Amino acid sequence: MINVGVIGVGYWGPNLIRNFIKNPHTHVNVICDLRTERLDSLRQIYPSLKAVQDYREVVHSKDIDLVVIATPVSTHYPLAKDALLEGKDILLTKPMTLTSTEAEELINLSEQKKRHIFVDHTFLFTGAVNKIKELIHNGQIGDLFYFDSVRVNLGLFQHDVNVIWDLAPHDISIMHNLLNEYPESIVATGAGHLGNKLEDVAYLTAYFKNNLIAHIHVNWLSPVKIRKTIIGGSEKMLVWDDLDSAEKIKIYDKGIEIQNVDREDRHRLLVSYRFGDMYAPRIDHTEALSLVVKEFADCIMENRPAITDGEAGLRILRILEAAEQSIKTEGANVPIGYLKEI
Amino acid sequence: MINVGVIGVGYWGPNLIRNFIKNPHTHVNVICDLRTERLDSLRQIYPSLKAVQDYREVVHSKDIDLVVIATPVSTHYPLAKDALLEGKDILLTKPMTLTSTEAEELINLSEQKKRHIFVDHTFLFTGAVNKIKELIHNGQIGDLFYFDSVRVNLGLFQHDVNVIWDLAPHDISIMHNLLNEYPESIVATGAGHLGNKLEDVAYLTAYFKNNLIAHIHVNWLSPVKIRKTIIGGSEKMLVWDDLDSAEKIKIYDKGIEIQNVDREDRHRLLVSYRFGDMYAPRIDHTEALSLVVKEFADCIMENRPAITDGEAGLRILRILEAAEQSIKTEGANVPIGYLKEI
Amino acid sequence: MINVGVIGVGYWGPNLIRNFIKNPHTHVNVICDLRTERLDSLRQIYPSLKAVQDYREVVHSKDIDLVVIATPVSTHYPLAKDALLEGKDILLTKPMTLTSTEAEELINLSEQKKRHIFVDHTFLFTGAVNKIKELIHNGQIGDLFYFDSVRVNLGLFQHDVNVIWDLAPHDISIMHNLLNEYPESIVATGAGHLGNKLEDVAYLTAYFKNNLIAHIHVNWLSPVKIRKTIIGGSEKMLVWDDLDSAEKIKIYDKGIEIQNVDREDRHRLLVSYRFGDMYAPRIDHTEALSLVVKEFADCIMENRPAITDGEAGLRILRILEAAEQSIKTEGANVPIGYLKEI
Amino acid sequence: MINVGVIGVGYWGPNLIRNFIKNPHTHVNVICDLRTERLDSLRQIYPSLKAVQDYREVVHSKDIDLVVIATPVSTHYPLAKDALLEGKDILLTKPMTLTSTEAEELINLSEQKKRHIFVDHTFLFTGAVNKIKELIHNGQIGDLFYFDSVRVNLGLFQHDVNVIWDLAPHDISIMHNLLNEYPESIVATGAGHLGNKLEDVAYLTAYFKNNLIAHIHVNWLSPVKIRKTIIGGSEKMLVWDDLDSAEKIKIYDKGIEIQNVDREDRHRLLVSYRFGDMYAPRIDHTEALSLVVKEFADCIMENRPAITDGEAGLRILRILEAAEQSIKTEGANVPIGYLKEI
Repeated sequence: MINVGVIGVGYWGPNLIRNFIKNPHTHVNVICDLRTERLDSLRQIYPSLKAVQDYREVVHSKDIDLVVIATPVSTHYPLAKDALLEGKDILLTKPMTLTSTEAEELINLSEQKKRHIFVDHTFLFTGAVNKIKELIHNGQIGDLFYFDSVRVNLGLFQHDVNVIWDLAPHDISIMHNLLNEYPESIVATGAGHLGNKLEDVAYLTAYFKNNLIAHIHVNWLSPVKIRKTIIGGSEKMLVWDDLDSAEKIKIYDKGIEIQNVDREDRHRLLVSYRFGDMYAPRIDHTEALSLVVKEFADCIMENRPAITDGEAGLRILRILEAAEQSIKTEGANVPIGYLKEI
Repeated sequence: MINVGVIGVGYWGPNLIRNFIKNPHTHVNVICDLRTERLDSLRQIYPSLKAVQDYREVVHSKDIDLVVIATPVSTHYPLAKDALLEGKDILLTKPMTLTSTEAEELINLSEQKKRHIFVDHTFLFTGAVNKIKELIHNGQIGDLFYFDSVRVNLGLFQHDVNVIWDLAPHDISIMHNLLNEYPESIVATGAGHLGNKLEDVAYLTAYFKNNLIAHIHVNWLSPVKIRKTIIGGSEKMLVWDDLDSAEKIKIYDKGIEIQNVDREDRHRLLVSYRFGDMYAPRIDHTEALSLVVKEFADCIMENRPAITDGEAGLRILRILEAAEQSIKTEGANVPIGYLKEI
Repeated sequence: MINVGVIGVGYWGPNLIRNFIKNPHTHVNVICDLRTERLDSLRQIYPSLKAVQDYREVVHSKDIDLVVIATPVSTHYPLAKDALLEGKDILLTKPMTLTSTEAEELINLSEQKKRHIFVDHTFLFTGAVNKIKELIHNGQIGDLFYFDSVRVNLGLFQHDVNVIWDLAPHDISIMHNLLNEYPESIVATGAGHLGNKLEDVAYLTAYFKNNLIAHIHVNWLSPVKIRKTIIGGSEKMLVWDDLDSAEKIKIYDKGIEIQNVDREDRHRLLVSYRFGDMYAPRIDHTEALSLVVKEFADCIMENRPAITDGEAGLRILRILEAAEQSIKTEGANVPIGYLKEI
Repeated sequence: MINVGVIGVGYWGPNLIRNFIKNPHTHVNVICDLRTERLDSLRQIYPSLKAVQDYREVVHSKDIDLVVIATPVSTHYPLAKDALLEGKDILLTKPMTLTSTEAEELINLSEQKKRHIFVDHTFLFTGAVNKIKELIHNGQIGDLFYFDSVRVNLGLFQHDVNVIWDLAPHDISIMHNLLNEYPESIVATGAGHLGNKLEDVAYLTAYFKNNLIAHIHVNWLSPVKIRKTIIGGSEKMLVWDDLDSAEKIKIYDKGIEIQNVDREDRHRLLVSYRFGDMYAPRIDHTEALSLVVKEFADCIMENRPAITDGEAGLRILRILEAAEQSIKTEGANVPIGYLKEI
């Protein structure tokens, strides 16, 4: 049995707790938050949980194996460092830390301490992402042309990071997972309107090899909620609408082909369009977070790295930092430096 | 009665012809196209129309007052120049010409010849754009935060311009018309996948004063058709879905307000969300192109410039050229130079 | 060449005229309406058409082979009778006549005169209906369980018939065509709210053999337009949304199976659900009315009956009359009498 | 503190338990089900709950004030009777019992024992129903013309009642609540396809005074989930789409007016259409079941009847029984007998 302590029980923490309680190999011992009303509200549901306000009671406890850190991102690094130093495995919500330097230090520390770092990129465990991955990897989509993702709605406004750091980690982790490639450079634009320095609307282009292009649109000030990803390939195109509960993924047998026709009398392009059927495969509806918890528990028990380990978290931070640099210079193209293989 | 000759009867020409026929002040004398099957097909509907293959029979005809040029954009300049030299008023489909230099030359020529240049930016005459303009101008939206426009579908692929030149003129003309401001700089990214040099997917950010930001996403390779514009303001936010025949415009009484609270004990932000009603105003459904034709006929009869005259067409070309330059340098920020007042 | 005269150029007449003009085997000689403004408006588009106000100039003309009657339904019978007596083929818009007695008389007269009666049930010629028919007839849907059709919107209010006579002929003709069976009895309910005696909201149940049931909901007072048909079968289920331009027909691999388990210890049902993929086949988008015109022209030239001949029109009238009788008695079950084989 | 025992923890029971746990005035002491796996699964979340398999341990317990009965409907009557005889207040899921005779007996018994009967018609406590009620009652909708409700999806198939008894109680309770009137007669049609005697598709028309008509369509075999109610009135029309999380209720300023014009020369109708704006009011999103629990707790503490008491449950049963009788006779019009005032 893996004993779990959870620090931070605001928006996402309670979901993690619920799933760690349901998992047969994990047991939640203690929850921690500065706000007692949150702790009280959770203890109404789970009266047997121990609740503390001082995170050190979690980190230093000998009864805890895995420390789950679901606090604002600016506190991730110090909490995670303390936990690793105490020999705990750690699970961080996304994004992993505020800087890649912090992330690298945690990765080094975890290697030294032979402990796990897990980052909760939940979307990688959804039925939708797994289905799309399968379609891409078995060749049905063909050569990839573009990846376009829109993630907009009103709020939840973050106080310590801008909208890219808040929302784009979802899209970037999905992009890495599906495209199985790392971008060469990033261009980002955006603006903030709420009297602080944080962008609330932002656009990110990622250039890959072979004319593959990705684009992410994130917005905290949209009156409507949109969660839509379009992927274009040479053989098929697909739309993933995460808000469509009935038909999340639609695969279109559509495309364009262009032939260069070079005859004596003229040089022109022949364009042919392919308009075929659409189909929407059945998607597994298992709650992704239960699979996240299962995977991390299995990794601990089998002593193997997770697909969303510290390195995966760091790769996303590098994109975020490049985007930040680009956005501050109003769209400069920022190359991504050397990185370990995905 | 204004006598009209139409050159180019491919996709858009027949719509112009139908509306010029319906207008009580205009009369279509002659139509012209290289492809006889197109001419034959139109003469089946309008047997009284004269049809020619040589455009000079239109441009040089003494019976023609207004020459409508609905041909591929690369032919706009020579056709328009000939027509102006012959003392005709001219109507060009969008975009006006291939370069701003060509457009400037046509504008100069038209001033010299005291003739009209009209550019058919049809969307400015739709009930939707007029309603949004009214809402912005009477202050209901408040300070503008962002303008986000998506115009994607499969084809129609153009042979002489990329997807930005083909589709974005719609969005740019709407953006100018609604925001009533001119951007300071442009960042554009994109990629092409069809063996020619033309981008088929592109993203354009326009930076305005006062943190106003606009973004345009155009794509020829999307499996689904999307025509959606979101505008965020300090008072209201609106979504225009041009494919929703019943409720094209939805206005949301939603927003975020942030106060900086600076107390002794802490410095933090207070965020308050406003979630109010939505309403969808009734939109005028008059065919926009009939209003375009009416406006241009009125301009000729009253000898006044149109809101979509040569200058308006040129302003859009400058954005397109900046976008082109940015896209070729993978996202460099390209400032827009001095321009006459909008 | 088949010479056509069209009586009635209100809402539907102009569509018929346009398609008869386009068809290579038909020629429109004369159009007729009591309202001169309608005639003038059509002559603006087709200056060569002869226009008259007295229908006898159509019916008695020696230059006319086919008389198209697109007038209010209460005038169908006298106009059609005159035309048949003059030896013309006739085309009636739906519903064929006001009563089955009128329809029978016209059928007898047409047999005597060896002339064609065509009824314009346009929907039977749409790509959607043909695709569904194909799916049903090749067994993909399995045994049919139900046919549910909703056809509601605001207006167009008719003056001489209620909403069932106005809208349900579409659904009934589709139902006959797809199910290839004739109902045994009808139950209809409804109500009128506009100070006349005509129902504006109505519901019609048709009982078939083998537990197949059909239901039609028609409404002139709905704030939203809905055109949706759901068909349930033992193997597949399908939804036809005629307002969805991209994916009109969706076929679901879904179902329920129930086994009676009779063991010693208990008697209970085992229910198993099948939730599979959905697919939306590509639909032919040829304008249905052009195929209607083609079929009727072919029938005249090949001297064969149409699938929507007088008998087909009469079968629909019998359902409408049964529905009328049921609705007047607030839901009494009205059996359908003997009818020729479909 | 009201002590609660819950019998039946299948689909709906756990939701009731969660809300009784959250309510500050109620306390769940014991849960009961024949299937131990269900009890175990709940005790994983709420380890402090006592779990039993014999319902008599709930009904006869001196520690229980309110017995919640969330079992299949065929068991409601004996369980409720036992609980009332033991002097407990009872809460029954819908429909209240299998017959109106059973319901009357329970009502009599509850009066004799001075105990409460609550029926969980959850929808009456949703923000949507309350908003619609407000709109109707303050006159915005005008005179009511029709109420049309569709509730279809695949499953969940019930073993002891047909689809009308399973799903229509929702629509009937909403209809009573909104229209504030009781129907005069019922016509119902339907069919079953799964080898048992239970209808899986059914249609119900309710006739009210003054030409008001209601229609309910319920279906267990629909490939798509629809939860849509349309209400037409003389002033406004509204659509409630319960699956639209953003804009559940849309109110349309649309209508038709007809004037009888009686002039010397002709007698005809003048029809005028009103096409105005649409608006979607903000809806309260409080979980309805928490309000159900609050209302019932308040009723017990204040010793007053609930709006969904035994009488309310009985009124719905009378409609269900009339529908049953009509459906068995293939659509006969079944009058509703004398009933206490709503």
